[in-house]
Amino acid sequence: MKTNASSLSKEQLAKLPHVVIIGAGFGGLQAARALGNAPVRVTVIDRTNHHLFQPLLYQVATAGLSPADISVPIRHVLRKYKNISVIMDEVTGIDVEGRHVLMDDLSLSYDYLIVATGAHENYFGHAKEWRPLAPGLKSLDDARGIRRKILQAFETAELETDPERIQELLTFIVVGGGPTGVEMAGAIAEVAHKTLASEFRHIDTSMARIILVEALPRILGTFPESLGRKVVKELTHLGVDVRLNTALEAIDEHGVIAAGQRIPAHTVIWTAGVQASPAGTWLQGEVDRAGRVKVQEDLTLPGHPEIYVIGDTASATQDGKPLPGVAPVAMQEGRYVAKSIKERVQSTKQPAPFRYKNKGYMATVGRAYGIVDLGFLHITGFLGWIMWLGVHVVYLIGFSNRIIVMLQWAWAYLTFQRRARIITYVADSLPLVKPEEAPRQPVQSR
Amino acid sequence: MKTNASSLSKEQLAKLPHVVIIGAGFGGLQAARALGNAPVRVTVIDRTNHHLFQPLLYQVATAGLSPADISVPIRHVLRKYKNISVIMDEVTGIDVEGRHVLMDDLSLSYDYLIVATGAHENYFGHAKEWRPLAPGLKSLDDARGIRRKILQAFETAELETDPERIQELLTFIVVGGGPTGVEMAGAIAEVAHKTLASEFRHIDTSMARIILVEALPRILGTFPESLGRKVVKELTHLGVDVRLNTALEAIDEHGVIAAGQRIPAHTVIWTAGVQASPAGTWLQGEVDRAGRVKVQEDLTLPGHPEIYVIGDTASATQDGKPLPGVAPVAMQEGRYVAKSIKERVQSTKQPAPFRYKNKGYMATVGRAYGIVDLGFLHITGFLGWIMWLGVHVVYLIGFSNRIIVMLQWAWAYLTFQRRARIITYVADSLPLVKPEEAPRQPVQSR
Repeated sequence: MKTNASSLSKEQLAKLPHVVIIGAGFGGLQAARALGNAPVRVTVIDRTNHHLFQPLLYQVATAGLSPADISVPIRHVLRKYKNISVIMDEVTGIDVEGRHVLMDDLSLSYDYLIVATGAHENYFGHAKEWRPLAPGLKSLDDARGIRRKILQAFETAELETDPERIQELLTFIVVGGGPTGVEMAGAIAEVAHKTLASEFRHIDTSMARIILVEALPRILGTFPESLGRKVVKELTHLGVDVRLNTALEAIDEHGVIAAGQRIPAHTVIWTAGVQASPAGTWLQGEVDRAGRVKVQEDLTLPGHPEIYVIGDTASATQDGKPLPGVAPVAMQEGRYVAKSIKERVQSTKQPAPFRYKNKGYMATVGRAYGIVDLGFLHITGFLGWIMWLGVHVVYLIGFSNRIIVMLQWAWAYLTFQRRARIITYVADSLPLVKPEEAPRQPVQSR
Repeated sequence: MKTNASSLSKEQLAKLPHVVIIGAGFGGLQAARALGNAPVRVTVIDRTNHHLFQPLLYQVATAGLSPADISVPIRHVLRKYKNISVIMDEVTGIDVEGRHVLMDDLSLSYDYLIVATGAHENYFGHAKEWRPLAPGLKSLDDARGIRRKILQAFETAELETDPERIQELLTFIVVGGGPTGVEMAGAIAEVAHKTLASEFRHIDTSMARIILVEALPRILGTFPESLGRKVVKELTHLGVDVRLNTALEAIDEHGVIAAGQRIPAHTVIWTAGVQASPAGTWLQGEVDRAGRVKVQEDLTLPGHPEIYVIGDTASATQDGKPLPGVAPVAMQEGRYVAKSIKERVQSTKQPAPFRYKNKGYMATVGRAYGIVDLGFLHITGFLGWIMWLGVHVVYLIGFSNRIIVMLQWAWAYLTFQRRARIITYVADSLPLVKPEEAPRQPVQSR
């Protein structure tokens, strides 16, 4: 049968197969869009009301962008598809046998389930002690909290008289040399050495130390080694102290111990690893070391052709190698899963296995330096940054955001200024105080 | 003596008279700017790091603008004046005899003091019970909290089945018919009837009731009666239920009692009155019913020529009438006080009394209707809105903000969309409740 769901009545819609998507990150949202007006009924569940453009979260954490610039209401993105409804609620479990998604006061039955619940920071067993001291960067609240902590450090230092305490307040440690760590370190250096330069009377913000701590002998492990070396040069040029082969041993209120050495620091930011959301335990499926659910070639859970797992929640392998936890993988998986469900609903055709097409990887350092790895070609420097900028602005969902973000970048680039330098009085000062009190990982995470 | 402080060394600066300004609102910031590079040493103290453009706070509360669009770091505004330093701290008291401003771990001596600490909501003796249930709109956190509550109400209603509960969730009561109340009510109506239309599948957002409750027989008391009547027409046209002569008697988790009638409502917003900050008690001065400090013609505290009180903290009268608590009054007072201090430092000349020059008042309703009272001329409708827009954008401090804000307004005007529709999970759910009672679900009846 070929039906266009947009022309159906509520009653007719109710008779269609029900697809439930948990998580409206890159994977879940792509799947939902691709199922728009298809002959299925779709329910998208997310614990927040917005889709978050996570690759730019570090810009919010460093006051370059506002939360609204990198997020868009899920309902707004999907409003034109009458066969899709959106629910803002927290999923508490999945009844795999009974085919129900469980929430606090609600339970939804499904014919097809797409689990796209993302990932959160991996503190390698130290979450309880370390998360409150070294927040990660996964949600808007994380970003606001880190922004507050960074800006507040300078304000407190301005009032401080003890030079040792001032140096501690002006020392920022970023743990982890992946793209997020590199982007954070570069941005903090820019804030300290450029943005705030002329604004304080007692402290010299150029005294600020930004230290990037990486346990491995190199940064940006997913990129070719030559690019990693260039980025280390660029970071050093920006005033970031890059320490390789430096494993973190301890974190407390006044700093860290790394490679046996104590580094006093007020601000420690964690970007060292990710761990999949609890979906694996809900699904009772086999999971890998990062808690990602092992899926088959068609991204379904073994023994459950009606359950798809995608994005950071899934451990998918291609040619024997695991697929990286990046947005393009999740987006391609989301589109593939939608296509595969449509095929199964409309025909008896067996969907082909999922193949990830690698279109390249990119990262940025500071204000005008980017690296692009197209496999056959490496681009670095200003041109790389322009490409990074272009791709990120184009992929920003919600047209108005694009203009605003471009404008703000143009402004920041010309003036070194950052618009969103707000320390709010209550809201931002609380989440970091008792993080364990409230879940810090949004369902959609990437 | 005529000196330009910008050319002085730290040691020379230290010898200059010390002016301490408490509060970087419209009044305090104008005073600071006017004292830039004057032969005095200036310290600005504010408990936040940003100057807030309060007239647009209702736009943040209704998701039209982001917090960063209407705030700018105080340091950034004042960075070019070497004789001004900024302190982010909370003032706890003033030692009037010893001429010291007291903070938690800090005390500053002054030669001249400018108290510009503003005002907060006046719950007329019910603050303890009513503030948690009916938040006011004074800070960015207030605005974020109200935004969260409004947006969450629609999300919760979408999941609700009981029609009475749905109507309660979709009823929004604005208490107080002043400019803020009028602007809030109009903006909420636009959000419910335009912005969110077509995005929900179960509820009909046009069912939302927006009720403006005013105890007096008319709204916008500071404006001519004819303009008030026109605004009531416009509000009604926007779908706002305006109830005059309706005194609020009680507020609880499920609504209010007004003029003897119970109105079930999830969201109640308080704009009914303001009360000066505790400065009056610090200064041991005579205060009026709203807690504003009575000042002399030159805005000094009687018996203390070295202490100036301005803006919403001051009760200044002109031609027997009290000056209204609006931004233009505070700004003119700030500039006057700066001028008067410069005169007293540089000459023996006795400063002339303060005279407020009324350049007119304006307010806006919904998306394209404004009223302007120039005294000799009243302008209403689209032209009034354009004038309102122009004035507010021009007065936005921080140039980059202006472009962004204009762009967002243009966008919102053309599309009815509002960019900042974010419900964050932790931060925004806390300010309106005590941390320890912070609910997991942001949907809290407070």
